[in-house]
Amino acid sequence: MEFRIIKSPSAGTLDILKRRMGPGANTELTSVAAVGLVQGRMIEMICAADIAEKAVGVTVEDVRGSCPQNMILIAIFGDTASVEAAIQEIKHKLEEGNYLC
Amino acid sequence: MEFRIIKSPSAGTLDILKRRMGPGANTELTSVAAVGLVQGRMIEMICAADIAEKAVGVTVEDVRGSCPQNMILIAIFGDTASVEAAIQEIKHKLEEGNYLC
Amino acid sequence: MEFRIIKSPSAGTLDILKRRMGPGANTELTSVAAVGLVQGRMIEMICAADIAEKAVGVTVEDVRGSCPQNMILIAIFGDTASVEAAIQEIKHKLEEGNYLC
Amino acid sequence: MEFRIIKSPSAGTLDILKRRMGPGANTELTSVAAVGLVQGRMIEMICAADIAEKAVGVTVEDVRGSCPQNMILIAIFGDTASVEAAIQEIKHKLEEGNYLC
Amino acid sequence: MEFRIIKSPSAGTLDILKRRMGPGANTELTSVAAVGLVQGRMIEMICAADIAEKAVGVTVEDVRGSCPQNMILIAIFGDTASVEAAIQEIKHKLEEGNYLC
Amino acid sequence: MEFRIIKSPSAGTLDILKRRMGPGANTELTSVAAVGLVQGRMIEMICAADIAEKAVGVTVEDVRGSCPQNMILIAIFGDTASVEAAIQEIKHKLEEGNYLC
Repeated sequence: MEFRIIKSPSAGTLDILKRRMGPGANTELTSVAAVGLVQGRMIEMICAADIAEKAVGVTVEDVRGSCPQNMILIAIFGDTASVEAAIQEIKHKLEEGNYLC
Repeated sequence: MEFRIIKSPSAGTLDILKRRMGPGANTELTSVAAVGLVQGRMIEMICAADIAEKAVGVTVEDVRGSCPQNMILIAIFGDTASVEAAIQEIKHKLEEGNYLC
Repeated sequence: MEFRIIKSPSAGTLDILKRRMGPGANTELTSVAAVGLVQGRMIEMICAADIAEKAVGVTVEDVRGSCPQNMILIAIFGDTASVEAAIQEIKHKLEEGNYLC
Repeated sequence: MEFRIIKSPSAGTLDILKRRMGPGANTELTSVAAVGLVQGRMIEMICAADIAEKAVGVTVEDVRGSCPQNMILIAIFGDTASVEAAIQEIKHKLEEGNYLC
Repeated sequence: MEFRIIKSPSAGTLDILKRRMGPGANTELTSVAAVGLVQGRMIEMICAADIAEKAVGVTVEDVRGSCPQNMILIAIFGDTASVEAAIQEIKHKLEEGNYLC
Repeated sequence: MEFRIIKSPSAGTLDILKRRMGPGANTELTSVAAVGLVQGRMIEMICAADIAEKAVGVTVEDVRGSCPQNMILIAIFGDTASVEAAIQEIKHKLEEGNYLC
């Protein structure tokens, strides 16, 4: 799993993300303070999306369109502190073995 | 093969799954208690889907749309105990050599 | 090459196969007793399909739609004995060097 | 590069090939005596197609549709002797270093 | 990550890029002095796009359409000095650990 | 990077190339004396296309449609001497470190 955070993303960056998110995305991207990016295998990323969704102050989108084999990318939108908190949650919960069976 | 389980999946997570399941999916996702995720090679996942289908209290969907080479992901919906039981079945039956010829 | 056999496939499993076989498929899947699955490289699978086609009591379909690189999956439908016989034929004929030039 | 030959291909096998050849294919497949299959990297296969095209008594088609990374498959149709001769030509000419620059 | 720069790109080269950029691209390519190309994993390339977007005198586009697994290519358009400066920025900021969390 | 040259390409070979070049291609393929093929990673191939475009007496097309991961294939059309000269240019300029930054 790999993590990146973009603070004050430029309009062009949001545009690239928006074009890869498809018409089904719900997040309004115009006034976003930070974007967290998490890339990993599909099965992990669905769990990561769930963890982020349950965190406070962020929304999560599935960034597709680059034909990643079984790697997918999710984007987490919110203010910088919330995005960082959501990413910490993902790191902890997936490493601690929650979501295992 | 890899296994994950999401208890009380968030609406956004179900949304990501729903968008990747395509229009042919039959499962009603609004009141799902747990989701089991199983990722593996296509030939194994079709057997895994069959095992889960024959288990009690769960429905199975094929999660496509991420161009996994010959890895696919299936999602198993139901209450937590049923989803866990279905995943145990998959582990046992595929390891025991059922479905071999 | 990899081989699996599903006896009395569930309706949901046949559904997953049917959705991945595309509109061009000819097999009527409602009363199928067994499904043999064979996964391998494209060039081998076309030969395997030919061997199975020439066997008795089975029909063969090409399962696409998962973007396998140069791996494809074929499904062989029929009664259990016929499907097993067709898979034995594939194993023997491809190993014996028929279909080589 | 890999080579296979199917003598008296079954109708179902020709059907699988036809469905993967797309609407642009020119070969009439109903009365084909043999099919040669050649799988390799795209750049080689275009040269292989050229060699086979210049051989006598065969036609060549590009079998796509399985998302092979940079592997493609060509099918060579004709009577058995012509198909075998075309495949020998491909083996010799590509190994001898024709088509290099 | 890999970097290339094309000074005074030919019309045909801009054409190839334009066809791979899709209808959503905003850059006017007729009078471009230089093109910087950066290829890397998707998560890095979104950060690289953001860095270049915040640099002076360049525009950034996402070059898709070649089904790169989880590698994508971005193109940076502008005068030679600006494109080189943007690429230096990308090299420094991503190596320095900005954009990490 | 890999290089091949086809002298007096057969009509069928040009047909395969034409079908993979898409509707946007500009080259008239009916009276082509030679075709140079260059296959490599996407970022290199865009530079290779630029080098060939700036050479004399050839036209360049992007051959897509086989889902090459991050490998693409370009075709260089012209008389044999011009195609060979263009390929020499590509070899020299990319090895000499032009197009690096």
